[in-house]
Amino acid sequence: MRATAEELAPFLRPWVPVVSLSKGLEQGSRLRMTEVLAQVLPGHPHGVLTGPNLAKEILAGDAAASVVAMEDPTIAEALQEVFATDLFRVYTNHDVIGCEVAGALKNVMAIASGMADGLGTGDNTRAAVITRGLAELTRLGCAMGGEQPTFSGLAGMGDLIATCISPQSRNRYVGEQLGKGRKIDEIIDEMHMVAEGVKSSKVVMELAVEHGVELPIAAEVHAVVHEGRPATEAYRGLLGRNVRSEMHGMPGS
Amino acid sequence: MRATAEELAPFLRPWVPVVSLSKGLEQGSRLRMTEVLAQVLPGHPHGVLTGPNLAKEILAGDAAASVVAMEDPTIAEALQEVFATDLFRVYTNHDVIGCEVAGALKNVMAIASGMADGLGTGDNTRAAVITRGLAELTRLGCAMGGEQPTFSGLAGMGDLIATCISPQSRNRYVGEQLGKGRKIDEIIDEMHMVAEGVKSSKVVMELAVEHGVELPIAAEVHAVVHEGRPATEAYRGLLGRNVRSEMHGMPGS
Repeated sequence: MRATAEELAPFLRPWVPVVSLSKGLEQGSRLRMTEVLAQVLPGHPHGVLTGPNLAKEILAGDAAASVVAMEDPTIAEALQEVFATDLFRVYTNHDVIGCEVAGALKNVMAIASGMADGLGTGDNTRAAVITRGLAELTRLGCAMGGEQPTFSGLAGMGDLIATCISPQSRNRYVGEQLGKGRKIDEIIDEMHMVAEGVKSSKVVMELAVEHGVELPIAAEVHAVVHEGRPATEAYRGLLGRNVRSEMHGMPGS
Repeated sequence: MRATAEELAPFLRPWVPVVSLSKGLEQGSRLRMTEVLAQVLPGHPHGVLTGPNLAKEILAGDAAASVVAMEDPTIAEALQEVFATDLFRVYTNHDVIGCEVAGALKNVMAIASGMADGLGTGDNTRAAVITRGLAELTRLGCAMGGEQPTFSGLAGMGDLIATCISPQSRNRYVGEQLGKGRKIDEIIDEMHMVAEGVKSSKVVMELAVEHGVELPIAAEVHAVVHEGRPATEAYRGLLGRNVRSEMHGMPGS
């Protein structure tokens, strides 16, 4: 639910930059979080802090790397200094769209990676799902105005890997349970936290249609989560696809 | 050790394509394996089969995806049909150099990822090491004539991830033991298989100098493996580097 400009006004001077820490897309409107911010808090510089940042590890004092994305590099560099510590390394990036889209889409791929885990496939399959998943994320993200290098960086590949390999990832957990043959309602009922990828998969498939982009892995996740397709069939569906050149459909190919 | 053309002649008709399954660079000459093939078996079309293909899992019947790279797409497609099965998916790629360089360099990064594991850092660090490691691999690989999209594909990112996360990876194991503070000679002595990254790290650092490319992670691996630097110091060294724009030094930036 959105806050109104009136509710937020007392907290912010008009020149203060606003940084989104949320990874998702608004249901219905399909807007990115900084697009929502632009409507709710117009006039402020908007950006996003994102990357492979599992909260529990950061709280435990483990080192992590992150990306602050703002269109204006001066503000990005100022925020870099605000957020960075000896153990929390912050890189700048000007590609706000790419960083945001990557953060939203990776949750869907984490469900796919978890499904492979639940089905008992090994690290080869996991690496292939993550790699081909990033290709899907890049295809849709670039169609939405993001830039390719962002998807190869910490906000894209980095966050995707952490989410797909970490036992702490809620989205990966949902996928794992689906891979073991459990029903989605049952899994969600017993969880006390949100698994964003469940909702995002719907928005992502709408965006795929809108932008005319093929997303075979996301489509299978959507079918399992929202149409009751068994995970074993989704896996077989992906294996049954025609293989061709690896770069088919990539930007520049 | 190289075979001579005379030793190999009885096995091959001159038009038969020769596919390298080795991931490494020749010591001293710093040649890629297909460059060695071109010297040993001149005239044959040369290529490489590579990707996230941990042998044990393929033998166990788990699905895996791979890349066959040949300069001639017709030969690549013919070999795709030779190698592919229902569970072994083979993509084609024309970028032989990129596929080969990625396969050699990823072993060095697997040692780095293993070192982080041995030091007890979490999945955030692991994801960051893999992501920044791929950026290093891409920088050097492109300087050597490889193409950027290859490094984002199965031969690059895919193989790197599998090697960095799999408990079966010998290079990751060597790194893990180094991270726990053990000496390299002791680790190698008790292993009955080759950890290619130990040798490759030397060649990779020579290539970095030759091509004028910065490889901070590979340099730390080299220092730990060949100069006795403790893994804890290598880790601190990487954390102490200046952060800047994430795309600094990437092709096209």
